Amino acid sequence: MSQYNIAWLPGDGVGVEVMEAARICLDALKFDAQYTHGDIGWEFWCTEGESFPQRTIDLLKNSHAAMFGAITSKPVKDAEAELVPALKGKGLIYRSPIVRMRQMFDLYTCLRPCKAYPGNPLNYKEGIDMVIFRENTEDLYSGVEFSPVPDELKATLKALSKPFGHFADLPGDQFAITCKVNTMKGCDRIIRAAFEYAKTFGYPKVTVIHKANVVRATEGMFLETGKRIAKEYPGIEMDDANVDAITMWMLKNPKNYGVMVATNLFGDIVSDLAAQMVGGLGFGCSGNIGEKLAVFEPSHGSAPKYAGQYKVNPIATILAAKMMLDWLGETHKGSRLEKAVAAVIADGQVRTYDMGGQATTLEMGEAIARKL
Amino acid sequence: MSQYNIAWLPGDGVGVEVMEAARICLDALKFDAQYTHGDIGWEFWCTEGESFPQRTIDLLKNSHAAMFGAITSKPVKDAEAELVPALKGKGLIYRSPIVRMRQMFDLYTCLRPCKAYPGNPLNYKEGIDMVIFRENTEDLYSGVEFSPVPDELKATLKALSKPFGHFADLPGDQFAITCKVNTMKGCDRIIRAAFEYAKTFGYPKVTVIHKANVVRATEGMFLETGKRIAKEYPGIEMDDANVDAITMWMLKNPKNYGVMVATNLFGDIVSDLAAQMVGGLGFGCSGNIGEKLAVFEPSHGSAPKYAGQYKVNPIATILAAKMMLDWLGETHKGSRLEKAVAAVIADGQVRTYDMGGQATTLEMGEAIARKL
Ligand SMILES: CC(C)[C@H](C(=O)O)[C@@H](O)C(=O)O
Ligand SMILES: CC(C)[C@H](C(=O)O)[C@@H](O)C(=O)O
Repeated sequence: MSQYNIAWLPGDGVGVEVMEAARICLDALKFDAQYTHGDIGWEFWCTEGESFPQRTIDLLKNSHAAMFGAITSKPVKDAEAELVPALKGKGLIYRSPIVRMRQMFDLYTCLRPCKAYPGNPLNYKEGIDMVIFRENTEDLYSGVEFSPVPDELKATLKALSKPFGHFADLPGDQFAITCKVNTMKGCDRIIRAAFEYAKTFGYPKVTVIHKANVVRATEGMFLETGKRIAKEYPGIEMDDANVDAITMWMLKNPKNYGVMVATNLFGDIVSDLAAQMVGGLGFGCSGNIGEKLAVFEPSHGSAPKYAGQYKVNPIATILAAKMMLDWLGETHKGSRLEKAVAAVIADGQVRTYDMGGQATTLEMGEAIARKL
Repeated sequence: MSQYNIAWLPGDGVGVEVMEAARICLDALKFDAQYTHGDIGWEFWCTEGESFPQRTIDLLKNSHAAMFGAITSKPVKDAEAELVPALKGKGLIYRSPIVRMRQMFDLYTCLRPCKAYPGNPLNYKEGIDMVIFRENTEDLYSGVEFSPVPDELKATLKALSKPFGHFADLPGDQFAITCKVNTMKGCDRIIRAAFEYAKTFGYPKVTVIHKANVVRATEGMFLETGKRIAKEYPGIEMDDANVDAITMWMLKNPKNYGVMVATNLFGDIVSDLAAQMVGGLGFGCSGNIGEKLAVFEPSHGSAPKYAGQYKVNPIATILAAKMMLDWLGETHKGSRLEKAVAAVIADGQVRTYDMGGQATTLEMGEAIARKL
């Protein structure tokens, strides 16, 4: 029997291809795992009305960790338009399976390291090493939203909120509301995770990203929680910045930042910006980490236009595999894998198209495996 | 009598200094205006409990346009902590006066042009010319927020929203809600403004920025509105992108973007990123434009640490003055002013500290005035 049960969810499009490359590396490392394929994605939505089927949920429940590739998602309207025979008349609404997975398994930490590996021609600047902690379960992702706005909600908001007077006289179909819901617990645990990481890996500072000057209730709570937790970590400086301003500072002085933490949607934005500074889609990897389960993925999508070409850069997925190894406690294998990635980048012999080269997805995987 | 009544709101900190520089240019242009000073900012909050006093509101009502410098704002807690004698026991809450001004006067278009003037040593790339249209009155800025969450709201949301089950059992003081409220009218008019601008100034494309894949009710409405309005402008292409992804694309290929439009907070973020690509704080200018009134400002803050040094770059404010001239129909003066700014940048003789030079705020203003 293998030591680890790993749920293997390639998804579709280039997801399938980058996952093959990651597997080449995991196998070369002799990582002792049993991989079980899980169905996920648009295809299952179209045939079963469920993009994240119960059998996949059960598989995750019985796995130590999961690797996830990418899935194609279409504009909501395509699904609602009932073009899909299996969904006709069922009134179903498509929801992103990765968002549901994060919430269902309480994978509250989204960890996104963005490191400029020396020699990567796509680096914005050398020496960048940002690690973004994104809250992964609540915020504008809570799914509490209304369009049209029901009369009952209008009446309640009108009674409870002064500024709402402005909207309260509008017919419910003339506006929409999305509730940004943040909990104390949610803020607390993600900020704590960021400080713990800074402490473990010797980062001197944690930057709390927020918009407390305007979005006072929720973002104010996030900032105040940051200040409270910072007191428990006297050796680590706490820094804070508005989410708008941080995009400027990151671009101006990226080396000023290490560990950063944000609520869900701001973390989504800032981590994409950071990933672009260290090479873009081919380099941004993501760990969705809970207490019992963690799911690792490249941050990129399924890139339908490249599907079938084995062209995209698998490094993001291979670095996601490295994060999985670390999370499972296989840190020795994790560092070996990262060193191999760094060595291939530094060599500059094997490069995928995004890096200006000709190597295929699998050639990149093999080149990294050879360095192990 | 002068042709225009201009409300002049320098604010505090470097706001005062950059406004002086802008005035040098407006005077050199022989712009026929009567300027009336208006009080605004933290100082009036501390003394009167009102950062945006009624007399300033009245002044704006009687003005053709306004120029606004910058104001210092402090974390909310400082005000709530009742450290301010005049506010003790009054239970007042500080709200940003610029946000209130935008809402009170329905200045629904926030127009933020970001152009890389040739020769600016701070340009990220040459040739960038992005124009951001940011909705300026609603969204997460609506002020409809709750911390703690009242029982009545909890009950209503529990009854109306399935995903809310997750939070509904939490005590109200363990979480907070900020309502993102967007109206059809609000989406319609800002997107229309963007398309009109593209049409008038010959931009081939409008990029609608959103997060419709997750924030379906409000951002979905924004995207759908974009698609509907695009049909009325057959000569202009409509493009769309998720707000997270757009930060990557903007960095990767900024010249791919011209007119862009977003809801309030996403526009806030994206416009800061765009401003950084064309020189940063010293170059980002902003027009808050309604049907009857418009207020022009640099996007930067009051920079307390530089206050009194006459050091910061006034170009953002001078470009804001250019936008004011254009909006008033004084487009000839507006172009002359922009050309003068461009000429000083191209010359490279007079540069403020951010550009690597030694010129003071007023020396920059004078250098631009000399080119008129
Ligand atoms: C695909 C999308 C739902 C997702 C998100 O918004 O979280 C993606 O952007 C990400 O960052 O993982
Ligand atoms: C100061 C702040 C309230 C403001 C905003 O969030 O709109 C600023 O960031 C801006 O962009 O004008």
